Amino acid sequence: MDLFYVLLILLVATRAFGEIAEHVGQPALVGELIAGITLGAIVAEYPGVFPDLVGLAGNEVFVSLTDLGMFLLMLFAGIEMQPHKILQYSGGALVVALGGMALPLALGLGLGWAFLPESDAKLAQCLFIGTALAITAVPATVRILMDLGQLTTRVGQTIISAAVFDDVMSLILLAWLTGLLTFGAPLGFADVALLFGKIALFFAVTTFVGVYVFPRGGRLMHYLKARELEISAVLAGAFAFAVLAEWLALHFIVGAFVAGLYFGRRTIDAESYERVKNTVSAMTFGFLAPIFFASIGLNLDLGALSGAPLFAGLLIACAFFGKIAGAGGAARAAGFSARDATAIGVGMSPRGAVELVIAGIALNAGLFEVVGPGNRIVANLFSAVVVMAVVTTVLSPIILKRVFSNGSDSA
Amino acid sequence: MDLFYVLLILLVATRAFGEIAEHVGQPALVGELIAGITLGAIVAEYPGVFPDLVGLAGNEVFVSLTDLGMFLLMLFAGIEMQPHKILQYSGGALVVALGGMALPLALGLGLGWAFLPESDAKLAQCLFIGTALAITAVPATVRILMDLGQLTTRVGQTIISAAVFDDVMSLILLAWLTGLLTFGAPLGFADVALLFGKIALFFAVTTFVGVYVFPRGGRLMHYLKARELEISAVLAGAFAFAVLAEWLALHFIVGAFVAGLYFGRRTIDAESYERVKNTVSAMTFGFLAPIFFASIGLNLDLGALSGAPLFAGLLIACAFFGKIAGAGGAARAAGFSARDATAIGVGMSPRGAVELVIAGIALNAGLFEVVGPGNRIVANLFSAVVVMAVVTTVLSPIILKRVFSNGSDSA
Repeated sequence: MDLFYVLLILLVATRAFGEIAEHVGQPALVGELIAGITLGAIVAEYPGVFPDLVGLAGNEVFVSLTDLGMFLLMLFAGIEMQPHKILQYSGGALVVALGGMALPLALGLGLGWAFLPESDAKLAQCLFIGTALAITAVPATVRILMDLGQLTTRVGQTIISAAVFDDVMSLILLAWLTGLLTFGAPLGFADVALLFGKIALFFAVTTFVGVYVFPRGGRLMHYLKARELEISAVLAGAFAFAVLAEWLALHFIVGAFVAGLYFGRRTIDAESYERVKNTVSAMTFGFLAPIFFASIGLNLDLGALSGAPLFAGLLIACAFFGKIAGAGGAARAAGFSARDATAIGVGMSPRGAVELVIAGIALNAGLFEVVGPGNRIVANLFSAVVVMAVVTTVLSPIILKRVFSNGSDSA
Repeated sequence: MDLFYVLLILLVATRAFGEIAEHVGQPALVGELIAGITLGAIVAEYPGVFPDLVGLAGNEVFVSLTDLGMFLLMLFAGIEMQPHKILQYSGGALVVALGGMALPLALGLGLGWAFLPESDAKLAQCLFIGTALAITAVPATVRILMDLGQLTTRVGQTIISAAVFDDVMSLILLAWLTGLLTFGAPLGFADVALLFGKIALFFAVTTFVGVYVFPRGGRLMHYLKARELEISAVLAGAFAFAVLAEWLALHFIVGAFVAGLYFGRRTIDAESYERVKNTVSAMTFGFLAPIFFASIGLNLDLGALSGAPLFAGLLIACAFFGKIAGAGGAARAAGFSARDATAIGVGMSPRGAVELVIAGIALNAGLFEVVGPGNRIVANLFSAVVVMAVVTTVLSPIILKRVFSNGSDSA
């Protein structure tokens, strides 16, 4: 692939569509997603128009750039938020996360049980659908809340905390699922205990480093001479947390987010803090985040809409209903107003990005081949999940904007 | 490769070595190069220590990131410089560039003729050595001048203009060489005329777009709503120029540099200009440029020092002598003081990065295999050129700093 040509096309398309989206009153990321979907459709229909974009979604260089985009987005969200607020809302967020996972998981298992043919792989396939419905795409959620200016409100903080809990729990589910796929049996008690131990270790180490080491590093900056060292230090800290997260069975986005959380106005002087924040913002929103959101749209494969329309439609319906009733219901029980509870449910509905990673793991593990192409649902399962991921990511911000603009009991 | 792990190791190593370099009075890039050389040596000796760094120099994702680093560095240099100053010094710079190419080319041809065995490939091999000596690594030169605070002085502007001329001319030489390698005959008159036509077209189109389209785009920004649109616009313009440069037989760095030149304080409002400049500076010096300079060091292969020490030593000597006598002599003739002429010669001596690209093309074309491994010089030619590229890039800034601190007749 010609790197600069691909970046040129994607950057121009996403920023133009994002601008149009804002002019018609929608969040910019809706435009960026549609830019990706449009380019994907053009390439699928006329591969000769943009030969460099053919197969782009699977290109290693491109995937690395979109990973960097996700990384920066989560780092920026962390920088914008405060650790003590996240902690303050964590009780309610945990309830929301549990409700928002349990119902979609149950719906997914039921949907799979009803539609999939009997086979040795049926349990794994049902669990895959359940996991696919249970997750929340944290980077998409973060971006939606930013575009709507709701990241640091009580509702926004609850959504993000719950989405991070969701991400951690979904990785446990995923470990369970890959265990089932690889060894033919779910994880045993010892494996699950080990997994929880690793996750606890991650949060223990990052809290210690964030609270004690980051501020010392910030003070050290005053004695150093090298140019642009602050941004290097923040990136290095976030890379370190991302690597640690991956070693300890978590997704790198959790590491980037936590690193951002512990980088605050008091870590270094106010001027350097603003400079770092401005740089991360420009790199993210001006360059890599649009390309990341375009990549979600580029992955869209509409096969399921003709191959298994009823199943795909039900999957999308379960995706929204599961989060709005599950997470929203839990939020209502935890004392949020009806409007805020709805916003929380909708805000946790996007499945883009993270879903595509999970679907890719399942694809590589051969989950969709077991029954052979004979079964229509199994043959279209991958495509249906991708359609659901893209549709929830495009519609959530549009619905959420309406929810926020109706009524006025926001924090 | 584990992206975040590799970025973490390289960022920490380069920034730490860069900081140490500044504390001992050397430019930061010397430290970054030495960080790359050190990591390369560790990996060569103990591949188990950093398994992710083994073979990194050839990894497609890593090469794309270093290309982005080079791109940003050239864009930033362009933003810092003024087109009319470049034009003002272009007469002198052309003389310097011609002198600085002719002598090294002749020295390289002579060195090859004396050392290489007779074979069908001898002419091509001699031409390769000549080209390898004739080029100047513009990104390295730019960075050295920035680290020394000399980018926008008369000497600095002359060096950069001459280095860009050099880059354009060396691509013509390279086209000639690849023609010789591919078709067994050098380019004919029609091919050379076509090449010149393409290059003229590049400068005509970019001048038109830079002078007439960029300012209109800048004014349009006031009517648009999307976040961080200025940096997207600058990046998109630079990507477009880079793509155009590659279509028209030039290196992408020329495109990035010219795009930066035409982006000035008057293209958009002063505040947005500063913001874009700060962002590009932070992305470049705080993230991708150190990784790019480390990659030059990582490429080092010391085989030639034991296999063909005399040849390697002479090659390095010719590299410095050719530029100091050739470019420096031409500068002296064009009216520069002895000290400034020496500075110009030394400033044009680094061969890192661009050299590695040329050597890679020659390697892929089979230039070093024609005579077989029987000949010591041919077997070590690739390694000798890489050693020369790294040594000139490490030593030039150290020497240049001394030249600038002696005497005081700088502009």
